[in-house]
This record gives sequence, structure tokens and C-alpha cells, in this order.
Amino acid sequence: MSQLNIIDRFKQVQDFICKELEHLDGAAKFQEDNWTRKEGGGGRTRIISNGNIFEKGGVNFSAVHGPVSELMRQQLGLNGQDFLATGVSIVLHPKNPYHPIMHMNVRYFQLNTGEYWFGGGIDMTPHYVDESLARDFHRELKKVCDRYHPTFYDRFKDWADDYFYIPHREETRGVGGIFYDHIKANHGVSKSDLEDFAIDLGELFPQLYSHQVKKCGNKDFGDREIEWQNLRRGRYVEFNLVYDRGTKFGLKTGGRIESILMSLPKNASWFYDFSPEKNSPEEKTLNQLKKNIDWLD
Amino acid sequence: MSQLNIIDRFKQVQDFICKELEHLDGAAKFQEDNWTRKEGGGGRTRIISNGNIFEKGGVNFSAVHGPVSELMRQQLGLNGQDFLATGVSIVLHPKNPYHPIMHMNVRYFQLNTGEYWFGGGIDMTPHYVDESLARDFHRELKKVCDRYHPTFYDRFKDWADDYFYIPHREETRGVGGIFYDHIKANHGVSKSDLEDFAIDLGELFPQLYSHQVKKCGNKDFGDREIEWQNLRRGRYVEFNLVYDRGTKFGLKTGGRIESILMSLPKNASWFYDFSPEKNSPEEKTLNQLKKNIDWLD
Repeated sequence: MSQLNIIDRFKQVQDFICKELEHLDGAAKFQEDNWTRKEGGGGRTRIISNGNIFEKGGVNFSAVHGPVSELMRQQLGLNGQDFLATGVSIVLHPKNPYHPIMHMNVRYFQLNTGEYWFGGGIDMTPHYVDESLARDFHRELKKVCDRYHPTFYDRFKDWADDYFYIPHREETRGVGGIFYDHIKANHGVSKSDLEDFAIDLGELFPQLYSHQVKKCGNKDFGDREIEWQNLRRGRYVEFNLVYDRGTKFGLKTGGRIESILMSLPKNASWFYDFSPEKNSPEEKTLNQLKKNIDWLD
Repeated sequence: MSQLNIIDRFKQVQDFICKELEHLDGAAKFQEDNWTRKEGGGGRTRIISNGNIFEKGGVNFSAVHGPVSELMRQQLGLNGQDFLATGVSIVLHPKNPYHPIMHMNVRYFQLNTGEYWFGGGIDMTPHYVDESLARDFHRELKKVCDRYHPTFYDRFKDWADDYFYIPHREETRGVGGIFYDHIKANHGVSKSDLEDFAIDLGELFPQLYSHQVKKCGNKDFGDREIEWQNLRRGRYVEFNLVYDRGTKFGLKTGGRIESILMSLPKNASWFYDFSPEKNSPEEKTLNQLKKNIDWLD
């Protein structure tokens, strides 16, 4: 286990990710907003925009603590008096429709009762699904999972399929990834392993994104691809505002709105009753927004 | 009371509104999609797009009936075995940022137990608030309300302020209007009066919209106004997906998605931590997105 506490390690991960993503972008730099929470703690929101690669993205760190409020008791079923919640959250919206939206969140929660848990995940939302790139993405996630427990990838991959799902569209948000929540030490995985796992995912994130961009290259695109990108971003907005637990909880509990909603794209579109042309790349993508695709096969 | 039943009257209102709005637009025509609901009933969704005035808009009629589902029992607290729900719903998103978004909904619900109620409302969301036009809007709403009950305007205006509110932004959606729900015959207002009130609101709607457009004229706009329009539309999306009861209920109960989400604009934007210039028209608008403004004063 690291000598640093988890809060400092999350801060370092945020620093590392921002540095790597700036390097990849080559033009834009993150702008930082520091904020504090009246009841205790605060965060560092970092936003990148109008870059070579990134149209809009955020890499947020936060560590908040204080008394468990009545709302938290009701919504989260918490029993303790005081809590600490810390984590790193990322959403990247690229300029080029052939580059994917990518999301990561790693978080740690503890109560004064001694209870604690970890949660997190990484998932990818390509505007156009490239099977080979989706497989690369899942393969790298599996490697990190396998370092901690042989069941992690399978369990967390299925969990992501279920979590990043838009029931009213009958679509997954993208090609999935991994998602886990309320995980404690168990089956030979210690608390410090879970902490290391979260840090490893953080360190993996910029590699995953770079790989997608480098293998795809800066492919040409026009109005058609931008319209489709904006339609897919509209679905992303629907997921985040209607289903994402973190977003909903943040909105209800008066979290810092601009940090919560940094996940939304600069532009999104809704076209009435859009249906893609037969055998088009857009139709092919829609057919791959399903649960239970084995991306390792 | 009309000889027609309320379903036929709502259909006629839809026809009237579409004809008037097409006339105002001068270019675009509504496209109709008829749909049926497996459990009973259906609707006529009519969409206008790429017009002179309207970038995207919908005027929907529906009349659905059937057994009260377990979900309806839970979500709506209904007691009967069978229900009928019918209504007309409109959202208009104009091309010109100086023209307002306008919404209307009038609806009637009944159970086989004999219980029934009316709900509805009209509210306006200018991208740029023009006080004189907001006053005209409220004055016309008051006239119709006053024909039915002296308390209607005040009650329903306050109700709209509370309903069309975005708590996480601490903003109203626009300049409000009127909203009412679960209204039955009472205080000398009969059931047939409530039906006539709904129809009158429907007939008023195109007049209200025409007035806004004609008084404003086709004012010039550029990139700045379009960016602001898209930001305001982003707020509209936030309201509809996070708070609007009809939208949430529709998504949960497997309603026809394209009819429910026709309320969303063609384009919307999210800019991180946007704040308008001091004394700009954008700042002036933000200052008027508050509850309890007396627009008749």
C-alpha cells in the first residue's frame, strides 16, 4: 500500500491524467477552478476546451466530508454520522466524430462507523463503433482487472452493460467497459488492493484514450458526421440527465453544478425520428449498441 | 357544453393550431405520424421543421386508454381499473433567437370509477426576455382565465412559477405562464366549463405565438445570439429530462419516445461556467428568470 493517503493519490492521478491529455492534445491546456463545500471539503475542477483533439472535457478531483445529511440518509441508506467521499471523474468530448467520448470515475466512500466502499469504472462511447478499437479497449481493461481478481473483468463488464444503458432508447450508451460499486475487501482482495486498483485505472485512462486517437488518426469528416456526432451526444445527455446516479444525486443535493454538468457536450442535437440509411456506418453503430457483446472474442 | 366529446374537440384543436402555425410560418408544413398503443388508443404526432419561423416543433394529440398498470398505480396513486387520458401537447423551437420557445399542454384524465380531472398550461421561454412582450403574453392568459374563475390566473400563474423551475440552476425556465393539474368541478366551475377552458387555451395558443413573432419582427442575429439561444435550449433540455413530470412518466412507462422527446430542440449547447457580460442583454434575461414577477403590473 502506498504511504500516501487515498486523497493525495487521487490528486496525483488527476495531475498525471491532465498532463498526459494535454500532451496528446498538443494545443489546449486545462483551466482549474478550485471550490470548497460549506459543510466540509472541496475540489479541483479542470476543464479543457477548443483543443486539437478535445472540444470539451473535464478531469475533476473532489474530497468532501461532513455530517451525513437527512437527504443522504434517505437516498443512499447511510447509517453513520459523518462521511468522507473522494474521487476522480472524467468525461472527454472530442472534436473529431471518429474519436470516442470516454468516461472514467474512481471513488472511495467511508463513514465514521468504519464502513467503507469503492466504486468506479471506465466506459467508452464511440460515435462510430470500430470493432477492432472496441476490442483493444476491453482487452486493456481486462489486463488491469486480472491483476486484482480473475472475476473482476467479467463481473464489472456485465455491470457496465447494465449501468450504461438507456432503457427508453433500448440502446447501451456505447461499447461499455467496466463499472463497479459498493465493493469492499473480500475473496483475498484487500482494501489496499482496491485502492491500488482505482489508481491503476486512473493511470490507464490516458493510455486508453491516446490509443484510440492514434490508431484512428485524424480522419476527415463533414456535416453528416457532425450531425451524427451531435445526435449521439444527445443520447449521452439523455443518459446523464435521466439515469446517471452520480448526476442525479449531485443535482438533488446541491453539488457544484458546473462540475457535475461538465460531463455534457458543447453541442448536442435531437432530430425527430431519425433512422439511419440501410447498411450505413450509422446503422452499423446502432446495431452494436447492445448488451452482452463479447469484445474479447 | 359542446355536442362533441372531448377527444374530438382536442383533435379539432390540434387541426386548428397546425393550420394557424403553418400560416404563420409560410413555408414549412406539419408531417403527421399516426401511432397506436398496444393496450389501447393512440395518437397523431405532428412535427414541423426547417421553416421560416420554426426550426423544430411538434403539436401532438393523443387519446390512450386501457387497464391501470401497476406502474401507474404506484407512480400516480390511481385506484380504478381502467383509465382514459387525452390531450394536446405543443413545443415550438423557433429559428430566430429573438422569438420565444412556447409550450402548451391541455389534458383530461378519467377512471372507470367516475373520477376525472383536468390539467394543462401554457408557458413561454424567451431566449431574450422582452418585458413588454412578456406582459402581453400574461395579459392574454389572464383574459381567458378570467372568463372561468376570478382566481384562476393568480393561482395558475403561481403554479407555473413553481412548476417550470430548475432548482439546480436557481432559474425559472422562462417567464412562466399558467399551469394547473388535478382540477375538478368546484366553486361554480362545472366539468363542461373546465373542458371549454382547455379548448379556449388551445385556440389562444397560435394567437399568442403569432403576436410574439409579429411584434418582435424578424430581427437580425449572429453567432453570439445563436450561442446564447443554444445555451438556453440546454437549460430547456435539463428541465424536460430532469424535472418535467410528463416526460419522466412517459419514459418510465414506455410511451412513444419520439412523441415525448419532440419537445427537445434541434440543437443545444453547454458551455462550462458561462457567465454573461455585465449589463448585456443576456445578463438582463438571467435576472428576469425568477419566480413571483408580476407581469401584469
